[in-house]
Amino acid sequence: MTKRQLFLMSSSALHGYEYLQHAEQDLTRFLQANKVKQVVFVPYALTDQKAYTQRVATVLERWGFGCVGLDATVDPVRAVQEAQAIYIGGGNTFLLLRTLYEKQLVTAIRERVLEHGVPYIGSSAGTNVATCSIQTTNDMPIVYPPSFDALGLVPFNINPHYLEPEEGSKHRGETRDQRIAQFHELNDAPVLGLREGASLLVEGNRATLVGTFPVRLFRKDTGAPTEHEPGTDLSFLL
Amino acid sequence: MTKRQLFLMSSSALHGYEYLQHAEQDLTRFLQANKVKQVVFVPYALTDQKAYTQRVATVLERWGFGCVGLDATVDPVRAVQEAQAIYIGGGNTFLLLRTLYEKQLVTAIRERVLEHGVPYIGSSAGTNVATCSIQTTNDMPIVYPPSFDALGLVPFNINPHYLEPEEGSKHRGETRDQRIAQFHELNDAPVLGLREGASLLVEGNRATLVGTFPVRLFRKDTGAPTEHEPGTDLSFLL
Repeated sequence: MTKRQLFLMSSSALHGYEYLQHAEQDLTRFLQANKVKQVVFVPYALTDQKAYTQRVATVLERWGFGCVGLDATVDPVRAVQEAQAIYIGGGNTFLLLRTLYEKQLVTAIRERVLEHGVPYIGSSAGTNVATCSIQTTNDMPIVYPPSFDALGLVPFNINPHYLEPEEGSKHRGETRDQRIAQFHELNDAPVLGLREGASLLVEGNRATLVGTFPVRLFRKDTGAPTEHEPGTDLSFLL
Repeated sequence: MTKRQLFLMSSSALHGYEYLQHAEQDLTRFLQANKVKQVVFVPYALTDQKAYTQRVATVLERWGFGCVGLDATVDPVRAVQEAQAIYIGGGNTFLLLRTLYEKQLVTAIRERVLEHGVPYIGSSAGTNVATCSIQTTNDMPIVYPPSFDALGLVPFNINPHYLEPEEGSKHRGETRDQRIAQFHELNDAPVLGLREGASLLVEGNRATLVGTFPVRLFRKDTGAPTEHEPGTDLSFLL
Protein backbone atom coordinates (compact mmCIF):
# COMPACT_ATOMS: atom_id res chain seq x y z
CA MET A 1 0.00 0.00 0.00
CA THR A 2 1.29 3.38 -0.98
CA LYS A 3 2.10 5.91 1.71
CA ARG A 4 1.40 8.89 -0.54
CA GLN A 5 0.17 12.15 0.99
CA LEU A 6 -0.78 14.63 -1.72
CA PHE A 7 -2.38 18.06 -1.76
CA LEU A 8 -3.11 18.95 -5.38
CA MET A 9 -4.42 22.45 -6.05
CA SER A 10 -5.98 23.62 -9.27
CA SER A 11 -4.24 26.97 -8.87
CA SER A 12 -2.31 29.13 -6.46
CA ALA A 13 -4.55 32.09 -7.25
CA LEU A 14 -8.29 32.49 -6.89
CA HIS A 15 -10.33 35.58 -7.72
CA GLY A 16 -10.92 37.62 -4.57
CA TYR A 17 -8.08 36.06 -2.58
CA GLU A 18 -4.41 36.82 -1.96
CA TYR A 19 -1.82 34.43 -3.39
CA LEU A 20 -2.49 30.91 -1.95
CA GLN A 21 -4.91 32.38 0.60
CA HIS A 22 -7.90 30.30 -0.53
CA ALA A 23 -6.04 27.12 0.45
CA GLU A 24 -4.54 28.41 3.72
CA GLN A 25 -6.71 26.40 6.09
CA ASP A 26 -6.58 23.06 4.26
CA LEU A 27 -2.93 23.32 3.35
CA THR A 28 -1.89 24.29 6.87
CA ARG A 29 -3.83 21.33 8.24
CA PHE A 30 -2.20 19.03 5.66
CA LEU A 31 1.31 20.15 6.63
CA GLN A 32 0.63 20.00 10.36
CA ALA A 33 -0.96 16.55 10.12
CA ASN A 34 2.23 15.38 8.44
CA LYS A 35 4.45 17.13 11.03
CA VAL A 36 6.12 19.26 8.35
CA LYS A 37 8.17 22.22 9.57
CA GLN A 38 10.06 22.98 6.36
CA VAL A 39 9.02 22.70 2.72
CA VAL A 40 11.31 22.21 -0.29
CA PHE A 41 9.91 24.36 -3.11
CA VAL A 42 10.44 23.49 -6.80
CA PRO A 43 10.33 26.74 -8.83
CA TYR A 44 11.16 25.21 -12.23
CA ALA A 45 7.90 26.12 -13.99
CA LEU A 46 8.95 29.78 -14.21
CA THR A 47 12.20 31.28 -15.46
CA ASP A 48 12.81 33.65 -12.54
CA GLN A 49 13.20 30.86 -10.01
CA LYS A 50 14.65 32.96 -7.23
CA ALA A 51 11.79 35.46 -7.23
CA TYR A 52 9.30 32.60 -7.44
CA THR A 53 10.71 30.85 -4.37
CA GLN A 54 10.70 34.15 -2.53
CA ARG A 55 7.05 34.69 -3.33
CA VAL A 56 6.00 31.28 -2.03
CA ALA A 57 8.35 31.37 0.97
CA THR A 58 6.85 34.67 2.12
CA VAL A 59 3.40 33.07 2.34
CA LEU A 60 4.53 29.81 3.93
CA GLU A 61 6.63 31.64 6.52
CA ARG A 62 3.65 33.80 7.44
CA TRP A 63 1.76 30.55 8.05
CA GLY A 64 4.58 29.27 10.26
CA PHE A 65 6.51 26.99 7.88
CA GLY A 66 10.07 27.23 6.59
CA CYS A 67 10.68 27.10 2.82
CA VAL A 68 13.83 26.56 0.74
CA GLY A 69 13.83 26.58 -3.05
CA LEU A 70 15.70 24.16 -5.29
CA ASP A 71 17.11 27.25 -7.05
CA ALA A 72 19.32 27.73 -3.99
CA THR A 73 20.89 24.28 -4.00
CA VAL A 74 23.64 22.69 -6.11
CA ASP A 75 22.29 19.17 -5.54
CA PRO A 76 18.53 19.12 -6.09
CA VAL A 77 18.29 15.31 -5.96
CA ARG A 78 19.81 15.31 -2.51
CA ALA A 79 17.58 18.20 -1.41
CA VAL A 80 14.53 16.22 -2.51
CA GLN A 81 15.78 13.09 -0.75
CA GLU A 82 16.16 15.00 2.49
CA ALA A 83 12.95 17.03 2.16
CA GLN A 84 10.23 16.92 4.81
CA ALA A 85 7.75 17.96 2.10
CA ILE A 86 7.95 18.82 -1.61
CA TYR A 87 5.95 21.65 -3.18
CA ILE A 88 5.98 22.07 -6.98
CA GLY A 89 4.58 25.41 -8.10
CA GLY A 90 2.72 26.34 -11.28
CA GLY A 91 3.86 28.13 -14.42
CA ASN A 92 4.61 26.37 -17.69
CA THR A 93 4.08 22.61 -17.48
CA PHE A 94 6.43 21.79 -20.39
CA LEU A 95 9.28 23.81 -18.91
CA LEU A 96 8.65 22.23 -15.52
CA LEU A 97 8.64 18.64 -16.76
CA ARG A 98 11.69 19.14 -18.99
CA THR A 99 13.63 20.55 -16.04
CA LEU A 100 12.55 17.70 -13.74
CA TYR A 101 13.91 15.21 -16.30
CA GLU A 102 17.11 17.22 -16.86
CA LYS A 103 17.85 17.26 -13.15
CA GLN A 104 17.02 13.55 -12.65
CA LEU A 105 14.18 14.46 -10.33
CA VAL A 106 11.32 12.45 -11.82
CA THR A 107 12.39 9.15 -10.27
CA ALA A 108 13.75 10.79 -7.12
CA ILE A 109 10.48 12.59 -6.32
CA ARG A 110 8.27 9.63 -7.23
CA GLU A 111 10.27 7.38 -4.90
CA ARG A 112 10.19 9.81 -1.99
CA VAL A 113 6.45 10.37 -2.28
CA LEU A 114 5.22 6.86 -3.06
CA GLU A 115 7.66 4.79 -1.03
CA HIS A 116 8.59 7.08 1.82
CA GLY A 117 5.37 9.03 2.24
CA VAL A 118 6.98 12.46 1.87
CA PRO A 119 4.07 14.93 1.54
CA TYR A 120 3.67 16.45 -1.93
CA ILE A 121 1.98 19.74 -2.72
CA GLY A 122 1.25 20.83 -6.27
CA SER A 123 -0.50 23.79 -7.81
CA SER A 124 -1.46 24.13 -11.47
CA ALA A 125 1.57 22.81 -13.45
CA GLY A 126 2.77 21.22 -10.21
CA THR A 127 -0.52 19.35 -10.08
CA ASN A 128 -0.28 18.35 -13.75
CA VAL A 129 3.12 16.74 -13.24
CA ALA A 130 1.86 14.79 -10.22
CA THR A 131 -0.48 12.78 -12.48
CA CYS A 132 0.08 10.18 -15.22
CA SER A 133 1.08 12.68 -17.85
CA ILE A 134 1.01 16.36 -18.77
CA GLN A 135 -1.29 15.61 -21.69
CA THR A 136 -4.19 17.58 -20.17
CA THR A 137 -2.31 20.80 -19.43
CA ASN A 138 -3.61 24.12 -20.78
CA ASP A 139 -0.11 25.47 -21.34
CA MET A 140 1.77 26.28 -24.51
CA PRO A 141 4.51 23.81 -25.46
CA ILE A 142 7.28 26.41 -25.16
CA VAL A 143 9.99 23.75 -24.75
CA TYR A 144 10.20 20.08 -25.80
CA PRO A 145 10.38 17.64 -22.89
CA PRO A 146 11.83 14.13 -23.42
CA SER A 147 8.41 12.63 -22.66
CA PHE A 148 4.91 13.69 -21.63
CA ASP A 149 4.92 11.01 -18.90
CA ALA A 150 4.94 12.65 -15.48
CA LEU A 151 5.46 11.62 -11.86
CA GLY A 152 2.51 9.21 -11.84
CA LEU A 153 1.62 9.80 -8.20
CA VAL A 154 -2.02 9.09 -9.11
CA PRO A 155 -3.35 6.88 -11.93
CA PHE A 156 -5.39 9.56 -13.69
CA ASN A 157 -4.97 12.98 -15.26
CA ILE A 158 -5.98 16.40 -13.99
CA ASN A 159 -6.98 19.49 -15.91
CA PRO A 160 -6.19 22.44 -13.63
CA HIS A 161 -7.91 25.83 -14.00
CA TYR A 162 -10.85 23.87 -15.37
CA LEU A 163 -13.68 26.06 -16.62
CA GLU A 164 -16.80 25.43 -18.61
CA PRO A 165 -17.59 26.88 -22.01
CA GLU A 166 -18.82 30.41 -21.55
CA GLU A 167 -22.46 30.72 -22.48
CA GLY A 168 -23.01 32.76 -25.60
CA SER A 169 -19.29 32.91 -26.39
CA LYS A 170 -18.49 33.90 -29.96
CA HIS A 171 -15.07 32.29 -29.80
CA ARG A 172 -14.77 29.26 -32.08
CA GLY A 173 -11.61 27.68 -30.66
CA GLU A 174 -12.19 24.35 -28.91
CA THR A 175 -13.75 24.50 -25.45
CA ARG A 176 -12.00 22.78 -22.56
CA ASP A 177 -14.55 19.94 -22.72
CA GLN A 178 -13.88 19.45 -26.44
CA ARG A 179 -10.13 19.30 -25.80
CA ILE A 180 -10.59 16.68 -23.09
CA ALA A 181 -12.88 14.70 -25.40
CA GLN A 182 -10.09 14.74 -28.03
CA PHE A 183 -7.69 13.46 -25.34
CA HIS A 184 -10.07 10.57 -24.70
CA GLU A 185 -10.28 9.67 -28.38
CA LEU A 186 -6.64 8.56 -28.06
CA ASN A 187 -6.01 7.99 -24.33
CA ASP A 188 -7.69 6.07 -21.52
CA ALA A 189 -6.88 7.88 -18.26
CA PRO A 190 -9.80 9.59 -16.49
CA VAL A 191 -9.47 13.39 -16.35
CA LEU A 192 -10.45 15.37 -13.29
CA GLY A 193 -11.38 18.93 -14.20
CA LEU A 194 -10.32 20.91 -11.11
CA ARG A 195 -11.89 24.36 -11.03
CA GLU A 196 -9.83 27.20 -9.60
CA GLY A 197 -10.17 27.03 -5.82
CA ALA A 198 -10.64 23.25 -5.79
CA SER A 199 -7.99 20.86 -4.46
CA LEU A 200 -7.64 17.11 -4.25
CA LEU A 201 -6.39 15.59 -0.99
CA VAL A 202 -4.93 12.10 -1.37
CA GLU A 203 -4.04 10.12 1.77
CA GLY A 204 -2.78 6.67 0.86
CA ASN A 205 -5.63 5.10 -1.07
CA ARG A 206 -8.20 7.71 -0.12
CA ALA A 207 -8.95 10.77 -2.24
CA THR A 208 -11.19 13.64 -1.15
CA LEU A 209 -12.20 16.84 -2.88
CA VAL A 210 -11.51 19.90 -0.70
CA GLY A 211 -12.38 23.55 -1.18
CA THR A 212 -15.73 25.05 -2.06
CA PHE A 213 -16.06 24.14 -5.74
CA PRO A 214 -17.36 20.95 -7.37
CA VAL A 215 -15.10 18.99 -9.69
CA ARG A 216 -15.97 17.63 -13.14
CA LEU A 217 -14.89 14.11 -14.00
CA PHE A 218 -14.40 12.99 -17.61
CA ARG A 219 -14.12 9.32 -18.44
CA LYS A 220 -13.51 7.69 -21.79
CA ASP A 221 -16.58 6.27 -23.49
CA THR A 222 -19.01 7.05 -20.67
CA GLY A 223 -20.96 9.83 -22.28
CA ALA A 224 -21.42 13.03 -20.29
CA PRO A 225 -18.93 14.01 -17.56
CA THR A 226 -20.09 13.89 -13.93
CA GLU A 227 -20.04 16.60 -11.26
CA HIS A 228 -18.83 15.88 -7.72
CA GLU A 229 -19.29 18.15 -4.71
CA PRO A 230 -16.61 19.19 -2.18
CA GLY A 231 -16.16 16.51 0.47
CA THR A 232 -16.88 13.76 -2.05
CA ASP A 233 -14.85 10.59 -1.67
CA LEU A 234 -13.04 10.11 -4.99
CA SER A 235 -11.03 7.07 -3.89
CA PHE A 236 -12.52 5.02 -6.73
CA LEU A 237 -10.10 6.87 -9.01
CA LEU A 238 -7.04 5.46 -7.22
CA MET B 1 13.81 33.17 -54.06
CA THR B 2 11.10 30.96 -52.70
CA LYS B 3 8.03 30.29 -54.79
CA ARG B 4 5.77 29.77 -51.80
CA GLN B 5 2.06 30.60 -52.08
CA LEU B 6 0.36 30.34 -48.70
CA PHE B 7 -3.09 31.11 -47.40
CA LEU B 8 -2.99 30.74 -43.61
CA MET B 9 -6.30 31.08 -41.78
CA SER B 10 -6.69 31.52 -38.05
CA SER B 11 -9.74 29.26 -38.11
CA SER B 12 -12.21 27.53 -40.39
CA ALA B 13 -15.11 28.83 -38.30
CA LEU B 14 -16.12 32.37 -37.47
CA HIS B 15 -19.09 33.43 -35.37
CA GLY B 16 -22.02 34.31 -37.62
CA TYR B 17 -20.70 32.43 -40.67
CA GLU B 18 -21.08 28.95 -42.10
CA TYR B 19 -18.05 26.66 -42.10
CA LEU B 20 -15.23 28.39 -44.09
CA GLN B 21 -17.70 30.96 -45.42
CA HIS B 22 -15.82 33.97 -44.01
CA ALA B 23 -12.84 33.13 -46.21
CA GLU B 24 -14.79 32.20 -49.35
CA GLN B 25 -13.90 35.25 -51.40
CA ASP B 26 -10.19 35.43 -50.56
CA LEU B 27 -9.63 31.70 -50.71
CA THR B 28 -11.44 31.34 -54.03
CA ARG B 29 -9.30 34.14 -55.45
CA PHE B 30 -6.15 32.48 -54.08
CA LEU B 31 -6.98 29.14 -55.72
CA GLN B 32 -8.03 30.72 -59.02
CA ALA B 33 -4.92 32.91 -59.17
CA ASN B 34 -2.86 29.74 -58.82
CA LYS B 35 -4.95 27.88 -61.44
CA VAL B 36 -5.97 25.20 -58.94
CA LYS B 37 -8.83 22.93 -59.95
CA GLN B 38 -8.36 20.20 -57.32
CA VAL B 39 -7.17 20.37 -53.71
CA VAL B 40 -5.52 17.60 -51.70
CA PHE B 41 -6.92 17.79 -48.17
CA VAL B 42 -4.96 16.60 -45.11
CA PRO B 43 -7.47 15.52 -42.41
CA TYR B 44 -4.91 14.24 -39.86
CA ALA B 45 -5.72 16.72 -37.08
CA LEU B 46 -8.97 14.89 -36.29
CA THR B 47 -9.57 11.20 -35.71
CA ASP B 48 -12.58 10.81 -38.02
CA GLN B 49 -10.62 11.64 -41.16
CA LYS B 50 -13.21 10.48 -43.65
CA ALA B 51 -15.97 12.64 -42.20
CA TYR B 52 -13.57 15.57 -41.99
CA THR B 53 -12.60 15.33 -45.66
CA GLN B 54 -16.26 15.08 -46.59
CA ARG B 55 -17.06 18.24 -44.66
CA VAL B 56 -14.35 20.26 -46.38
CA ALA B 57 -14.97 18.73 -49.81
CA THR B 58 -18.63 19.72 -49.66
CA VAL B 59 -17.68 23.37 -49.25
CA LEU B 60 -14.89 23.37 -51.83
CA GLU B 61 -17.07 21.61 -54.38
CA ARG B 62 -19.81 24.18 -53.86
CA TRP B 63 -17.18 26.82 -54.66
CA GLY B 64 -16.21 24.95 -57.84
CA PHE B 65 -13.08 23.06 -56.76
CA GLY B 66 -12.42 19.33 -56.53
CA CYS B 67 -11.13 17.89 -53.25
CA VAL B 68 -9.58 14.54 -52.33
CA GLY B 69 -8.49 13.62 -48.81
CA LEU B 70 -5.29 11.83 -47.85
CA ASP B 71 -7.50 9.42 -45.90
CA ALA B 72 -8.54 7.97 -49.26
CA THR B 73 -5.04 7.23 -50.54
CA VAL B 74 -2.55 4.46 -49.75
CA ASP B 75 0.42 6.61 -50.71
CA PRO B 76 0.10 10.06 -49.13
CA VAL B 77 3.64 11.14 -50.10
CA ARG B 78 2.86 10.52 -53.75
CA ALA B 79 -0.52 12.27 -53.42
CA VAL B 80 1.26 15.31 -52.01
CA GLN B 81 3.89 15.22 -54.75
CA GLU B 82 1.18 15.21 -57.40
CA ALA B 83 -1.09 17.74 -55.68
CA GLN B 84 -2.14 20.98 -57.38
CA ALA B 85 -2.70 22.45 -53.90
CA ILE B 86 -2.40 21.19 -50.31
CA TYR B 87 -4.90 22.11 -47.60
CA ILE B 88 -4.20 21.09 -43.99
CA GLY B 89 -7.24 21.43 -41.74
CA GLY B 90 -7.45 22.22 -38.03
CA GLY B 91 -8.07 20.02 -35.02
CA ASN B 92 -5.36 18.90 -32.62
CA THR B 93 -1.94 20.26 -33.57
CA PHE B 94 0.02 17.53 -31.75
CA LEU B 95 -1.91 14.73 -33.45
CA LEU B 96 -1.50 16.49 -36.79
CA LEU B 97 2.26 16.98 -36.51
CA ARG B 98 2.88 13.45 -35.20
CA THR B 99 0.97 12.02 -38.15
CA LEU B 100 2.82 14.21 -40.66
CA TYR B 101 6.11 12.84 -39.28
CA GLU B 102 4.85 9.24 -39.20
CA LYS B 103 3.83 9.43 -42.84
CA GLN B 104 7.06 11.12 -43.97
CA LEU B 105 5.13 14.17 -45.08
CA VAL B 106 7.07 16.95 -43.36
CA THR B 107 9.88 17.03 -45.89
CA ALA B 108 7.61 16.13 -48.81
CA ILE B 109 5.22 19.02 -48.18
CA ARG B 110 7.97 21.54 -47.42
CA GLU B 111 9.70 20.69 -50.68
CA ARG B 112 6.55 20.92 -52.78
CA VAL B 113 5.57 24.26 -51.29
CA LEU B 114 8.95 26.00 -51.06
CA GLU B 115 10.67 24.62 -54.15
CA HIS B 116 7.80 23.93 -56.52
CA GLY B 117 5.38 26.65 -55.49
CA VAL B 118 2.47 24.30 -54.79
CA PRO B 119 -0.18 26.45 -53.05
CA TYR B 120 -0.66 25.69 -49.37
CA ILE B 121 -3.79 26.38 -47.35
CA GLY B 122 -3.91 26.00 -43.59
CA SER B 123 -6.50 26.65 -40.93
CA SER B 124 -5.89 26.61 -37.18
CA ALA B 125 -3.65 23.55 -36.53
CA GLY B 126 -2.91 23.52 -40.27
CA THR B 127 -1.65 27.08 -39.88
CA ASN B 128 0.40 26.21 -36.79
CA VAL B 129 2.26 23.45 -38.63
CA ALA B 130 3.04 25.78 -41.54
CA THR B 131 5.28 27.89 -39.26
CA CYS B 132 8.62 27.28 -37.51
CA SER B 133 7.14 25.16 -34.76
CA ILE B 134 3.92 24.21 -33.00
CA GLN B 135 5.15 25.87 -29.82
CA THR B 136 2.44 28.52 -29.91
CA THR B 137 -0.55 26.25 -30.36
CA ASN B 138 -3.50 26.44 -27.94
CA ASP B 139 -4.12 22.71 -28.10
CA MET B 140 -3.70 19.99 -25.50
CA PRO B 141 -0.69 17.71 -26.02
CA ILE B 142 -2.86 14.59 -26.46
CA VAL B 143 -0.08 12.70 -28.27
CA TYR B 144 3.74 13.04 -28.24
CA PRO B 145 5.23 14.08 -31.59
CA PRO B 146 8.89 13.33 -32.36
CA SER B 147 9.62 17.07 -32.42
CA PHE B 148 7.83 20.41 -32.11
CA ASP B 149 9.57 21.63 -35.30
CA ALA B 150 7.03 22.07 -38.06
CA LEU B 151 7.03 22.67 -41.83
CA GLY B 152 8.89 25.98 -41.58
CA LEU B 153 7.14 27.57 -44.56
CA VAL B 154 7.56 30.95 -42.84
CA PRO B 155 10.30 32.02 -40.38
CA PHE B 156 7.98 32.95 -37.50
CA ASN B 157 5.26 31.45 -35.33
CA ILE B 158 1.50 31.97 -35.41
CA ASN B 159 -1.01 31.79 -32.59
CA PRO B 160 -4.34 30.95 -34.23
CA HIS B 161 -7.70 31.77 -32.58
CA TYR B 162 -5.86 34.65 -30.93
CA LEU B 163 -7.97 36.56 -28.45
CA GLU B 164 -7.24 39.17 -25.84
CA PRO B 165 -7.75 38.79 -22.13
CA GLU B 166 -11.40 39.31 -21.35
CA GLU B 167 -11.97 42.46 -19.36
CA GLY B 168 -13.07 41.79 -15.82
CA SER B 169 -12.45 38.06 -16.13
CA LYS B 170 -12.24 36.22 -12.82
CA HIS B 171 -10.27 33.36 -14.33
CA ARG B 172 -6.71 33.19 -13.04
CA GLY B 173 -5.17 30.87 -15.63
CA GLU B 174 -2.58 32.56 -17.86
CA THR B 175 -3.95 34.85 -20.59
CA ARG B 176 -2.92 34.25 -24.19
CA ASP B 177 -0.54 37.22 -23.98
CA GLN B 178 1.10 35.82 -20.85
CA ARG B 179 1.60 32.46 -22.55
CA ILE B 180 3.21 34.10 -25.56
CA ALA B 181 5.45 36.15 -23.22
CA GLN B 182 6.56 32.86 -21.59
CA PHE B 183 7.32 31.51 -25.08
CA HIS B 184 9.54 34.53 -25.69
CA GLU B 185 11.43 34.04 -22.43
CA LEU B 186 12.90 30.91 -24.05
CA ASN B 187 12.45 31.33 -27.83
CA ASP B 188 13.21 34.01 -30.41
CA ALA B 189 10.66 33.63 -33.23
CA PRO B 190 8.14 36.46 -33.62
CA VAL B 191 4.54 35.35 -32.94
CA LEU B 192 1.64 36.59 -35.02
CA GLY B 193 -1.60 36.49 -33.05
CA LEU B 194 -4.21 35.79 -35.75
CA ARG B 195 -7.73 36.56 -34.53
CA GLU B 196 -10.55 34.33 -35.78
CA GLY B 197 -11.54 35.58 -39.21
CA ALA B 198 -8.03 36.84 -40.02
CA SER B 199 -5.77 35.18 -42.61
CA LEU B 200 -2.24 35.70 -43.79
CA LEU B 201 -1.56 35.61 -47.53
CA VAL B 202 2.07 34.89 -48.45
CA GLU B 203 3.15 35.23 -52.09
CA GLY B 204 6.86 34.56 -52.43
CA ASN B 205 8.48 37.15 -50.20
CA ARG B 206 5.38 39.26 -49.72
CA ALA B 207 2.99 38.78 -46.80
CA THR B 208 -0.35 40.54 -46.48
CA LEU B 209 -3.03 40.40 -43.82
CA VAL B 210 -6.45 39.62 -45.30
CA GLY B 211 -9.90 39.54 -43.72
CA THR B 212 -11.54 42.18 -41.57
CA PHE B 213 -9.66 41.82 -38.29
CA PRO B 214 -6.36 43.35 -37.18
CA VAL B 215 -3.49 41.08 -36.13
CA ARG B 216 -1.32 41.38 -33.03
CA LEU B 217 2.41 40.88 -33.38
CA PHE B 218 4.58 39.81 -30.45
CA ARG B 219 8.34 40.13 -30.65
CA LYS B 220 10.94 39.11 -28.11
CA ASP B 221 12.33 41.91 -25.98
CA THR B 222 10.44 44.72 -27.72
CA GLY B 223 7.96 45.56 -24.99
CA ALA B 224 4.32 45.81 -25.94
CA PRO B 225 2.96 43.90 -28.95
CA THR B 226 1.85 45.89 -32.00
CA GLU B 227 -1.48 45.91 -33.85
CA HIS B 228 -1.65 45.75 -37.66
CA GLU B 229 -4.75 46.40 -39.75
CA PRO B 230 -6.09 44.25 -42.63
CA GLY B 231 -4.27 45.02 -45.86
CA THR B 232 -1.03 45.69 -43.98
CA ASP B 233 2.16 44.54 -45.67
CA LEU B 234 3.84 42.16 -43.23
CA SER B 235 6.68 41.16 -45.56
CA PHE B 236 9.23 42.35 -42.99
CA LEU B 237 8.52 39.11 -41.12
CA LEU B 238 9.76 36.94 -44.00
